[in-house]
Amino acid sequence: MDNPQPEIRNRKSEDAPWTRKDLLGIRELSVAELTHILDTASAFKEVGRRTIKKVPALRGMTLVNFFVENSTRTRTSFELAAKRLSLDVVNVSATASSLAKGETLKDTAHIFQANGADIIVMRHSSAGAAHFLSTRLRASIINAGDGAHEHPTQALLDTFTIRERLGRVAGLNVLILGDILFSRVARSNIHALLKLGARVTLCGPSTLVPRAFEQMGVTVTHDLDSVLAEADVINLLRIQHERQRKEYFPSLGEYTALFGLTKARAARLKPSALIMHPGPINRGVEIDSDIADGGRSVILEQVTNGLAVRMAVLYLCAGAR
Amino acid sequence: MDNPQPEIRNRKSEDAPWTRKDLLGIRELSVAELTHILDTASAFKEVGRRTIKKVPALRGMTLVNFFVENSTRTRTSFELAAKRLSLDVVNVSATASSLAKGETLKDTAHIFQANGADIIVMRHSSAGAAHFLSTRLRASIINAGDGAHEHPTQALLDTFTIRERLGRVAGLNVLILGDILFSRVARSNIHALLKLGARVTLCGPSTLVPRAFEQMGVTVTHDLDSVLAEADVINLLRIQHERQRKEYFPSLGEYTALFGLTKARAARLKPSALIMHPGPINRGVEIDSDIADGGRSVILEQVTNGLAVRMAVLYLCAGAR
Amino acid sequence: MDNPQPEIRNRKSEDAPWTRKDLLGIRELSVAELTHILDTASAFKEVGRRTIKKVPALRGMTLVNFFVENSTRTRTSFELAAKRLSLDVVNVSATASSLAKGETLKDTAHIFQANGADIIVMRHSSAGAAHFLSTRLRASIINAGDGAHEHPTQALLDTFTIRERLGRVAGLNVLILGDILFSRVARSNIHALLKLGARVTLCGPSTLVPRAFEQMGVTVTHDLDSVLAEADVINLLRIQHERQRKEYFPSLGEYTALFGLTKARAARLKPSALIMHPGPINRGVEIDSDIADGGRSVILEQVTNGLAVRMAVLYLCAGAR
Repeated sequence: MDNPQPEIRNRKSEDAPWTRKDLLGIRELSVAELTHILDTASAFKEVGRRTIKKVPALRGMTLVNFFVENSTRTRTSFELAAKRLSLDVVNVSATASSLAKGETLKDTAHIFQANGADIIVMRHSSAGAAHFLSTRLRASIINAGDGAHEHPTQALLDTFTIRERLGRVAGLNVLILGDILFSRVARSNIHALLKLGARVTLCGPSTLVPRAFEQMGVTVTHDLDSVLAEADVINLLRIQHERQRKEYFPSLGEYTALFGLTKARAARLKPSALIMHPGPINRGVEIDSDIADGGRSVILEQVTNGLAVRMAVLYLCAGAR
Repeated sequence: MDNPQPEIRNRKSEDAPWTRKDLLGIRELSVAELTHILDTASAFKEVGRRTIKKVPALRGMTLVNFFVENSTRTRTSFELAAKRLSLDVVNVSATASSLAKGETLKDTAHIFQANGADIIVMRHSSAGAAHFLSTRLRASIINAGDGAHEHPTQALLDTFTIRERLGRVAGLNVLILGDILFSRVARSNIHALLKLGARVTLCGPSTLVPRAFEQMGVTVTHDLDSVLAEADVINLLRIQHERQRKEYFPSLGEYTALFGLTKARAARLKPSALIMHPGPINRGVEIDSDIADGGRSVILEQVTNGLAVRMAVLYLCAGAR
Repeated sequence: MDNPQPEIRNRKSEDAPWTRKDLLGIRELSVAELTHILDTASAFKEVGRRTIKKVPALRGMTLVNFFVENSTRTRTSFELAAKRLSLDVVNVSATASSLAKGETLKDTAHIFQANGADIIVMRHSSAGAAHFLSTRLRASIINAGDGAHEHPTQALLDTFTIRERLGRVAGLNVLILGDILFSRVARSNIHALLKLGARVTLCGPSTLVPRAFEQMGVTVTHDLDSVLAEADVINLLRIQHERQRKEYFPSLGEYTALFGLTKARAARLKPSALIMHPGPINRGVEIDSDIADGGRSVILEQVTNGLAVRMAVLYLCAGAR
């Protein structure tokens, strides 16, 4: 337990002070707050390169990983981020919780808090669920995805990856491709990118990328080939074919023909363009398999950065309580 | 790991020495033993108020949380109590265990012990399951609920809460309300309360609160309104409507009308009366929603005290091996 | 964290140096490598006898327990071995992983690695799955069972138990009994035993113990009573009656009559013979219940040795990265 902290403490008091106990979404964050999280994550990323990838920062505190909607990927990332901060972690799944016995969400969360939870990380199928709890509990509430609303840590790790790789976010052309309508990842990314000065273009089938998104300040197009060449970043959202109840596009094959990042399309991207995907990827659907593994793909780096970003979020929110 | 122990060690040798490796039920405990657990829990509750809520007391020891009958609430409480004592914890659920492959309970438990388990916390649907293992294993067996028999740590946390809030247990009128027949919580509470000198009244539908309970030394009534005003404590048991196979009462609505703690009934309670519930609560069935959240309700405090009580039980039983 | 390491480090550099980042099977190991693992396990077994059964050897490193095929027994053993080495452990089950969303095995494993996994312990229903990952990832891959191919740590703990109990492996007569055809445990044991100089006899119904095994250098018989008396070790494999799709033997009763270790047969074993079983045992099928609990049975000792062997494997593979 003698592993030194990264130099975060001083920085914290110097620039943008973080005062939020919760992270509910990107929309409500100031540019200074966004930047402060990313800066803090940079310091924590350094911890991940040490032999002993652990700091005692939050030792003796408790995190409940409460995934009412299952997601091993995000749950695991938060669990590992928490363990690197020396938090004690308890995982509670939807079916295992007392929700299954008819307990209200508020009561379930209050039980976690009474059990000593300092931080509750929650994924829930209802938009606003994290916000609902945040106003009722002393514990920090970290939104790990609420319905089609927000998934703030995904947007933070995407933005972190862009900033680290390309040196800045302002002025970049970021193309988000795919199922925007149902995507909390898209919503959180749009907020983060616009706040930091990027130009955002959304592209996909008109059923999944309605014109109404233009009100957020982005460009909407349904013609991928017309916008491909100018993108500095292309972020491919997963086609959640296991979730689509109605038919939003004729077939996976047709989706790939019109919106897949094939080898031919990848050849038209800038040599410096970043190819991103929040995962899990459908090889051969949203993206050609070789392109997913190619030099411009930062898909696995996004995962690694997710750890650093989540450490930062946990650290800042716990510190603000 | 430099967090100081609470002042427990010395006390342990002074007064009532604890010599049991197992906690199977309240019935077999002496008054001195009961009191010793509650005193030890008081010391551990103080740990829960520190910034670093952890002591190295049981570091390097292993606890298996073996819930043959699922219960996230109790499992989580034991898991957190164990982690605060620096135990390593492994969770094993019913379906995941080799019981599903036809292994005997004894063999499954022996495997845990051979794997280094120092403590096995077990919930099981059969009364006597914990006792069965306790005589066959060197490991400490902690009964986290066995059929309709006992749930000793629930009774300990209830008693702890009463003693801490009202300063004593002896001489108090404690009213236990609801499904007594199938309730291990009721059985363990009755034993603890009577041993510590409380007067216990049971109330509920005659199908769920048979007169036979009077043999335990308690008063049985089916008329809530006749006993409400004299209660110092009212403990509302959960109507486990998901478990009732036969009809023990006409309907939930009728149950509430006759035995629910409505606003009107709550108004007739003593101003100092404690309102308790082991959870998860059915708002609007056993208890009015506002009353559950009101000033006399100690429902969440019970949860917090559960951590301290379980830390005490783990600490004492591990030390007695 | 001031618990001393066992004296392993020096030994490591002296004799057979271990250079493999992965443990995929026994077949490819040299005698020196096999012996080195067993020697290292002896040192770690000593840790299990301490009050604080923990060493800081792999602190700050992360292990993912990835059981695509469920096994609480083996998963728990690896989890506890890892915690004794101060590793952080994350459990991921088949259904919980993104495999369920159509992600490839390689992608899932890459995500673990990007999340900081230093070691991935994997059980998988396909032979070769661990090998497949080992060539594609920097992380250590530990095979915890792949199809009917290998289960190396089971063979190591079996061999460790024989060597510790009987002082040697070379020259011993080891009889492996039961379902050999589908058994990765049998395959790994045959490799380990032959490498260390034991004579191996396989016995069971001809449908489950085909003559073709003789090509491995073992003796095959279908007449248990003819080979019983000369065995120094008898290793009873589990009849996995829940998995047998076709009929490989007429009935469990008939299996017991011909191949069960009954009291009568046990009486014909050498007094010094070891009775082993990887578990979970079917009492009354492969083995008489009293014999399973008798003095020559080392079934629970195998479990305890499994912890030491797995600590050794994790320690050596992590150190070789």
